[in-house]
Amino acid sequence: MDRVPILKLGDILIVSIQIDLQDMSVLALQEDLSEKVVETGARGVIIDITAVEIVDSFIGRMLATIAAISRMLDAETIVVGMRPAVAITLVELGLSLGGVRTALNLEKGVALLNQIESSQRSTAAW
Amino acid sequence: MDRVPILKLGDILIVSIQIDLQDMSVLALQEDLSEKVVETGARGVIIDITAVEIVDSFIGRMLATIAAISRMLDAETIVVGMRPAVAITLVELGLSLGGVRTALNLEKGVALLNQIESSQRSTAAW
Repeated sequence: MDRVPILKLGDILIVSIQIDLQDMSVLALQEDLSEKVVETGARGVIIDITAVEIVDSFIGRMLATIAAISRMLDAETIVVGMRPAVAITLVELGLSLGGVRTALNLEKGVALLNQIESSQRSTAAW
Repeated sequence: MDRVPILKLGDILIVSIQIDLQDMSVLALQEDLSEKVVETGARGVIIDITAVEIVDSFIGRMLATIAAISRMLDAETIVVGMRPAVAITLVELGLSLGGVRTALNLEKGVALLNQIESSQRSTAAW
């Protein structure tokens, strides 16, 4: 069973999805990611789907579940690198990513995480 | 043919190798990477091999070639995430990575790149 590697950079975890995710590897990824979030105290998870050519309801649900789990563990999830064709398919199929945030690429994803954190900090100050 | 996605973060390119690289995909990766180095003016390439369980002379040569090409284009290559078993195999087989630098993980790779850059800058100042 292939496991998707999770890279850590500062307090951000980066996952680049390149393989066709099967049920088992998705469960493994969810488990690995949630353990890693707790272990490292990461505040953000960035999932890169540049290599994903086809998004169906299975992948959509997986992304939403990962985001929901991470949120429970106090980490924000950003999906980056979506291909135009994938975005078109998602809209045409009426699939929602269940409140998952997206950004164009890794850099913009990191910027978005920083922005979210600073806005949370200013809210917390109140 | 699967193409390995290349992530950009600042002036660093990050490649996470997860698939079994065949001749064709290695050539594609070398081509994509060198184009991306020129296009972005990246100063560093970090290749993550956390997911690579077996390294043979083919993979070793590929890493050395990518490093040599990047160096021509003025970018340093760091291989990160090598498994202990892979390091043992490399030494036992007498395979050298042809002067490719390694670091334990992505964070240390980024730190090494910053260190190389600052030492180059101080040399240039002379």
